[in-house]
Amino acid sequence: MPTAALWDSLWIDLSLATMVDGAADAYGAVPDAAVGVKDGKIVFAGPRAALPGPMESLAAHVHSGGGGWMTPGLIDAHTHLVYGGNRAREFEMRLQGASYEEIARAGGGIVSTVAATRAADEDALLAVALPRLDSLLAEGVTTVEIKSGYGLDTASEMKMLRVARRLAEVRPVDVRATFLGAHAVPPERRGDPDGYIDQLCAETLPAVAQAGLADAVDAFCEGIGFSIDQTRRVFEAARAHGLPVKLHAEQLSNLGGAKLVAAFGGLSADHIEHLDEEGVVAMARAGTAAVLLPGAFYALRETKLPPIDLLRRHGVPMALSTDNNPGTSPVCSLLLMLSMGCTFFRLTPAEALAGVTRCAARALGLSDRGVIAPGMRADLVLWGIDHPAELSYAIGLNPCRAVVNAGIVRAPRILS
Amino acid sequence: MPTAALWDSLWIDLSLATMVDGAADAYGAVPDAAVGVKDGKIVFAGPRAALPGPMESLAAHVHSGGGGWMTPGLIDAHTHLVYGGNRAREFEMRLQGASYEEIARAGGGIVSTVAATRAADEDALLAVALPRLDSLLAEGVTTVEIKSGYGLDTASEMKMLRVARRLAEVRPVDVRATFLGAHAVPPERRGDPDGYIDQLCAETLPAVAQAGLADAVDAFCEGIGFSIDQTRRVFEAARAHGLPVKLHAEQLSNLGGAKLVAAFGGLSADHIEHLDEEGVVAMARAGTAAVLLPGAFYALRETKLPPIDLLRRHGVPMALSTDNNPGTSPVCSLLLMLSMGCTFFRLTPAEALAGVTRCAARALGLSDRGVIAPGMRADLVLWGIDHPAELSYAIGLNPCRAVVNAGIVRAPRILS
Ligand SMILES: [Zn+2]
Ligand SMILES: [Zn+2]
Repeated sequence: MPTAALWDSLWIDLSLATMVDGAADAYGAVPDAAVGVKDGKIVFAGPRAALPGPMESLAAHVHSGGGGWMTPGLIDAHTHLVYGGNRAREFEMRLQGASYEEIARAGGGIVSTVAATRAADEDALLAVALPRLDSLLAEGVTTVEIKSGYGLDTASEMKMLRVARRLAEVRPVDVRATFLGAHAVPPERRGDPDGYIDQLCAETLPAVAQAGLADAVDAFCEGIGFSIDQTRRVFEAARAHGLPVKLHAEQLSNLGGAKLVAAFGGLSADHIEHLDEEGVVAMARAGTAAVLLPGAFYALRETKLPPIDLLRRHGVPMALSTDNNPGTSPVCSLLLMLSMGCTFFRLTPAEALAGVTRCAARALGLSDRGVIAPGMRADLVLWGIDHPAELSYAIGLNPCRAVVNAGIVRAPRILS
Repeated sequence: MPTAALWDSLWIDLSLATMVDGAADAYGAVPDAAVGVKDGKIVFAGPRAALPGPMESLAAHVHSGGGGWMTPGLIDAHTHLVYGGNRAREFEMRLQGASYEEIARAGGGIVSTVAATRAADEDALLAVALPRLDSLLAEGVTTVEIKSGYGLDTASEMKMLRVARRLAEVRPVDVRATFLGAHAVPPERRGDPDGYIDQLCAETLPAVAQAGLADAVDAFCEGIGFSIDQTRRVFEAARAHGLPVKLHAEQLSNLGGAKLVAAFGGLSADHIEHLDEEGVVAMARAGTAAVLLPGAFYALRETKLPPIDLLRRHGVPMALSTDNNPGTSPVCSLLLMLSMGCTFFRLTPAEALAGVTRCAARALGLSDRGVIAPGMRADLVLWGIDHPAELSYAIGLNPCRAVVNAGIVRAPRILS
């Protein structure tokens, strides 16, 4: 009989914020802890004193956490990270007093991003997405959701999704790709949203599904986006292809999008500043998560707050994401969203951290990550902090010391 | 006769945002530019076509800017970077619903920072300040102002200022140290602000001045700080020791602090949300700069905006700074202040960039930096951007590619 296999690695000299739901404190904190990793998964997480044997006999490599804190790898559950061009000049024109009409005449708005995205080839899109992704990864992101939605024709949407998939090949990150063909009506279909949705359901979505390019389907349900009926048709097509749905809902008005996505057993309703209790209850019953996007709230100078208390009261998981996009949230820092989630939305620091770990995993339908517990993926971040509240308190500081992706350690630095 | 001395280095393949005042555009932009550096100073800045000879004959080293933009080194004109402890737990308690009384009972507030700062020795203060400073430097900061004000006794204030000076020895940055003994009444003097100011003027300020530990003197003039009369006494003591003054003024109410600091020919009035036109006019006449602090505005969820239009109309230079401090602005990103300056205060991106270059130099009384022009210090930053508005538009992204401190290149990276 061979002896029991060693773990691949063991982490000691650290505290854990396991983020396990229902723990004694909101962080699931474990002082003087240890974490064992084998075959990319967590095999031990608990007090060091509870290790099942002498350290040296347990693992091939022993890492010191230098007295810092370890959390689950961060999860950014809502981004539009792949796009061509940027909208800095439009941002500047607006601050110089230009009207929306003048900006549109100067080629601004989403139309400009669609044009730049269509014009770029895959390599070019990959190259411009990388600095944005690298910025997220430097802060401990191990899973990122990326939406299409600036192609708005079959070939361009598939191009965006292929780039999203390729990002996971060139960087240590797990990518969840979302088909967001119903993001806007493309310029060549102006005035014919129903015709565009027809084509999307008949051609684009089936092609995306068949190529295995999407893990979920999203839509922008809004007065300036698509109607409830149009959204429902997209969701029915998604269901026909076995893809889960999610929705940009109730951002600027309450159209009942959250109820709709809940009726489809959807993963998440995102933005939701104008969500009412009926929608919250529907989400709670369906297990649909809320995705809060304080970066867009900030950049749009929104004043209407999402119904945090209602979401809390009904136990809806609240994810917190960057919404990285060129128009309304050019945000490349998920840690900053913890600060803004607390400052603007009055989340507690523990809720904010759950929003980028456990609840973000829920919003992506992933049950294998988001907490530190045996059996979970070994996606872990080591932070040079004395208390996990510091992650929400500090603004523009990155205390990330090491990241573990499915057991592989990257960017390790010895803590002083 | 020796031949004319070569320049030490020459930068090409870049555009310049010289930030020179009164240029044709707000950035003082120069496309296809070149910058020559010798003995730590700029000796040439202009179109590459205007170089006085063939490239090879001009400089010992030629650097490519990779098609990016070069700006003056960034200047953070208002920080409290040196302090012990942090206030993350207090931040968390507040979000959990604790009252100010409960937080005070738990040892929170500025008193906790004073206690931690007094308890720490110089090495410990230096060690905890470094990650904050490094975060600023990574974004192209080449000059940083650092205030005392958490010691509140002679020995502890001098300790803080010595740490501020030492930071410039261990990192490539120029530090301007400011004595802010009149930050708060220390616990042992509670109820006796006048007695504390007596001691400050008679003992602490002279000791600081004699040791050459401060480049300027600051005070917190506010209902919860010091009165106009107490502030005047501090300023008179500063004048007696040949030190310029500046002031935390009109942050929570309009006490006339800006007029007072202008009457002393002061460097800057900082915060100034409640400043009125009379104060603006006084500042304009005296050449006193405004220092805008959107990080504190954000963290305090302030709604009263500083009088940007008045400052513009009267030509008061507007600096933009982090106010890095543990209580009301734990901000370690100056680039984020560009975004917040534009988003909250409606500065244009060019005004925001001037706020961390030319106008920040004005706020520190430094005439040798803040613009790219012959004779200036060669404090320069190379950015991987296509337009300088991107520096204000992006949120949480750091496109810094290289930094030059008085001619010395650090962290250079080849642009792709
Ligand atoms: Zn979005
Ligand atoms: Zn301050």
